[in-house]
Amino acid sequence: MAEEAAQEQTDPTASRPVRCIVKLGGAAITNKGELESIDAVSLRSACAQLRQAMSHGGAAGKVVGMDWSRRPGDPTDPVVDVEGLSEMGGLGLDSNFVVVHGAGSFGHFQASRSGIHKGGLHSTLVKAGFVATRISVTSLNQEIVRALAREGIPSVGMSPFACGWSTKQRNLASVDASQIMQSLHVGFVPVLHGDAVLDELLDCTILSGDVIIRHLAQLLSPKYVVFLTDVHGVYDRPPSDPNAVLLREIAVDENGSWSIVKPALKGNKKGVEISVAAHDTTGGMETKILEAAAIARLGVDVYITKVGTEHSLRALNGDTSSEDWLGTVIRSSG
Amino acid sequence: MAEEAAQEQTDPTASRPVRCIVKLGGAAITNKGELESIDAVSLRSACAQLRQAMSHGGAAGKVVGMDWSRRPGDPTDPVVDVEGLSEMGGLGLDSNFVVVHGAGSFGHFQASRSGIHKGGLHSTLVKAGFVATRISVTSLNQEIVRALAREGIPSVGMSPFACGWSTKQRNLASVDASQIMQSLHVGFVPVLHGDAVLDELLDCTILSGDVIIRHLAQLLSPKYVVFLTDVHGVYDRPPSDPNAVLLREIAVDENGSWSIVKPALKGNKKGVEISVAAHDTTGGMETKILEAAAIARLGVDVYITKVGTEHSLRALNGDTSSEDWLGTVIRSSG
Repeated sequence: MAEEAAQEQTDPTASRPVRCIVKLGGAAITNKGELESIDAVSLRSACAQLRQAMSHGGAAGKVVGMDWSRRPGDPTDPVVDVEGLSEMGGLGLDSNFVVVHGAGSFGHFQASRSGIHKGGLHSTLVKAGFVATRISVTSLNQEIVRALAREGIPSVGMSPFACGWSTKQRNLASVDASQIMQSLHVGFVPVLHGDAVLDELLDCTILSGDVIIRHLAQLLSPKYVVFLTDVHGVYDRPPSDPNAVLLREIAVDENGSWSIVKPALKGNKKGVEISVAAHDTTGGMETKILEAAAIARLGVDVYITKVGTEHSLRALNGDTSSEDWLGTVIRSSG
Repeated sequence: MAEEAAQEQTDPTASRPVRCIVKLGGAAITNKGELESIDAVSLRSACAQLRQAMSHGGAAGKVVGMDWSRRPGDPTDPVVDVEGLSEMGGLGLDSNFVVVHGAGSFGHFQASRSGIHKGGLHSTLVKAGFVATRISVTSLNQEIVRALAREGIPSVGMSPFACGWSTKQRNLASVDASQIMQSLHVGFVPVLHGDAVLDELLDCTILSGDVIIRHLAQLLSPKYVVFLTDVHGVYDRPPSDPNAVLLREIAVDENGSWSIVKPALKGNKKGVEISVAAHDTTGGMETKILEAAAIARLGVDVYITKVGTEHSLRALNGDTSSEDWLGTVIRSSG
């Protein structure tokens, strides 16, 4: 509790501490292998569980749908109960969450065809690929904002490139998070995403959702960070391998080296082949574990678990302590 | 010429002066009266003419399509000629334009139902309406970015709320245009839009595309500003009136008062009933003329004309001097 209080004091601009930063992994919410295809069932489940977590497990109140747009094929205009909404006291949600999502089957095609991660905007291919990649990832962002809004979560899309996030030799160089903090302050849930950004040395590159989360964790000191993916967590080898063992707890020391606490594995623990979500298009596993470890080093617990399960709901509630919770906890050993 | 050179020097961060800020009026590119319906013909024409203007009237080169996403109903994945694009020397476009669009039939329904222009985010209705309005206007932004990209224009969406534009009692309070300048610098065309934003006193309000343009004109000193709308320009009474007279030239003095230079009208010139585009959802005509006059006072000519005509193409080229050009020029009398 003392630690939590200390964390709260580190952010003078926000009136309430951020409870949780959630990563919706590209593999969790899109259909791999099919260009620009959303896994609607997983996305809906993730949004519904986020709402439950924001209600603190209390009885689910009336959902105030906040997507008043037509869907393609909608026969009629949306209906808005203006009078009913005017009379409501409030949303009854602890909406102090930030959502960051990956790209999955959005953006990957465009980015890989053009090689924008290598930079070089003087090339017509790279310039066109940059535009095409942003169109693809922002259209996913739009769909995720809408899915959250339909669950009554007051979500606002904030595209990192447009907000001025930029890199230098692929490392974050410039970030203005003041609008994110302002939005949280008035009760909105910012929704960011992996994006194509400008790079001081390379012209442009890809900024992954994982790097964004690490940086936001540093700025906002959330109570915990949740990665929702398409497998139960981090395994010692590809999860498709029948002998794969789920790593339940990983400890990160102050130097950033990590060791497996649970379960006790035989042999070299550091050399295990780690697989969280092989379809992720940025960084791969090494990067993902490194980013999670960097967050844990800040004193923020990271929970990695499977989307759309009871385990993901418990993770979103910050409740992963019981023995039957299935997932990976990455925390500081300090 | 001396004046142009002076203007160029006022913007130290951009390597090239901005040629033109274009407003795609909501009435010009959406179908009034039908919720969230794009006027695809007008939008395509506006994008094609923008491309022609960027080519300086030269022979239209190969269009490098930059929207590599699937459209709903597309049977196959997009095809990208990686080799051909790699070998291209450059786009051959003078892309130093900024595009700002209105909302038209997007956002208006959501904003008016919830009354977000009056503020008060503590109200559930206003909070939900803010989210719903942003979903609607950003989906239009996405479609406009895509339409420009399909014409080979390297467009990047930049949503004002997300970029931190905010107001105080409806007047612009905070604007960070550095990402817009960075984007122009590397050859992208920023695409902004009227948006729901945070307001220091009211909590939230609507920021119109016209106010955004006035501010960008101040920051970027473009050579000229073009408003594309659904009528030929500013009339002395509603353009549906058969006796309506198109005002060809309006002069604005240093105090901001304006007078009609062409044609010579009888009676009180100041009291004429002005109508540009009665379907615009923010501000109305009074605001529109005032914003255009404020731009003209900066020494930047404003051309208001009808989308999808030879007159709009000439306006985008900055060439409105001949007698047969149909539209309204608003310029400083100084």
